[in-house]
Amino acid sequence: MKVLALDSSGLVATAAVLDDDTLLAEYTVNHKKTHSQTLLPMIDEIMRMLNMDIAEIDAIALAGGPGSFTGLRIGSATAKGFGLALDKPLVPVPTVDALACNLCEVTDSLIVPMMDARREQVYTGIYRFAEGRLRVIRSQWPAPVTELAAILNDRGEKAILLGDGVPVYQERLKELLRIPYRIAPAHLNRQRAGAVGFLAMQYLAEGKTVSAAGHVPEYLRLSQAERERRERELREKKS
Amino acid sequence: MKVLALDSSGLVATAAVLDDDTLLAEYTVNHKKTHSQTLLPMIDEIMRMLNMDIAEIDAIALAGGPGSFTGLRIGSATAKGFGLALDKPLVPVPTVDALACNLCEVTDSLIVPMMDARREQVYTGIYRFAEGRLRVIRSQWPAPVTELAAILNDRGEKAILLGDGVPVYQERLKELLRIPYRIAPAHLNRQRAGAVGFLAMQYLAEGKTVSAAGHVPEYLRLSQAERERRERELREKKS
Repeated sequence: MKVLALDSSGLVATAAVLDDDTLLAEYTVNHKKTHSQTLLPMIDEIMRMLNMDIAEIDAIALAGGPGSFTGLRIGSATAKGFGLALDKPLVPVPTVDALACNLCEVTDSLIVPMMDARREQVYTGIYRFAEGRLRVIRSQWPAPVTELAAILNDRGEKAILLGDGVPVYQERLKELLRIPYRIAPAHLNRQRAGAVGFLAMQYLAEGKTVSAAGHVPEYLRLSQAERERRERELREKKS
Repeated sequence: MKVLALDSSGLVATAAVLDDDTLLAEYTVNHKKTHSQTLLPMIDEIMRMLNMDIAEIDAIALAGGPGSFTGLRIGSATAKGFGLALDKPLVPVPTVDALACNLCEVTDSLIVPMMDARREQVYTGIYRFAEGRLRVIRSQWPAPVTELAAILNDRGEKAILLGDGVPVYQERLKELLRIPYRIAPAHLNRQRAGAVGFLAMQYLAEGKTVSAAGHVPEYLRLSQAERERRERELREKKS
């Protein structure tokens, strides 16, 4: 089963092709170019290097959200385009679950990804890898850093932190956390399409796919424009 | 400090650019093309995607061996070419140490990479990550699988196995090993230039560089041609 995996939910653009449990190719770029400039050329480049026709792909896996609204839309649009053109299913996986899969099978610690969600929040979740599966202890949600730290302190377990939210809140975390914790190194710290594909293979085996037409990103929060409209409407109602 | 990192020691060709503790780009291909067809175009592609001129690189890190003789020569020739042309130092890191760094900072288990070395042997080593550093418990050497298993059984500690030698000797290992062990998943299981670069940053900080002219790969064993000549010479002496 060949899967094209994508993640453009954060600062990183990443694409990979997996064939069952083999990672055939992976390409990740952490650069200021927008994902609309990078993602399609990266996929094209990988296909050329693998001498593979995109039609050989059986499914398209993607980070289904949360993340940057624009980034998620670029990823979704790309995956939907391929899915519709090739008549293949999509396999959206929760972005934070996929990020946790960076460390799948190799640690007994809690795995705590943090994506910077601005406004003093992170998109986060709490995970453990046990008995051959990623166990979701608390599924992804947008949390103030203080709330996340309180939950981790209550659990009192060793944790590994990763994601682009860690450097943003590193000083705050040092003050708040009373558990032993480590920060994943650079090459394990950001979104990887290889990890998206790893999780998607399990979803595929369980038949958890969606149609290209039916897929929508999971934002987990209102966009800034929607939020401002709601606030304006509330103010107008009150006055 | 910007580092171009390469690894063509095994089946995988992988290239990355790091800027201190940020992985700017990484590109890995696990395909039947020879590394002489893939490595340079991959580097070129990354540089283009990063809008970076190769002259901006401060050092060239590479998997210095062991590995496939042809693969090591392609990697060395590429790194020496860039080093000589740009007048930049090389940072060769032991291939098996770099592979162990796939799991740096995220596990307390023993880390045991195994590269298939043919002739019933693996290039292996025994590592642990502790106090912010990769600790070399037994440095890389070519071992019969039975010898490695006996050493691991003697230590009696939990281990994580990775590398292209694992699938080759998986059944044998299941018979031989009496310790709890896990096998790293696909996206953590093969050479990654990001891990080569991670280790090279520490080498650079310690001034462990070599000149492009001076670098030679570390094969750890004689080539088949050299071995056959020795055997022939021995036979001729005896007769």
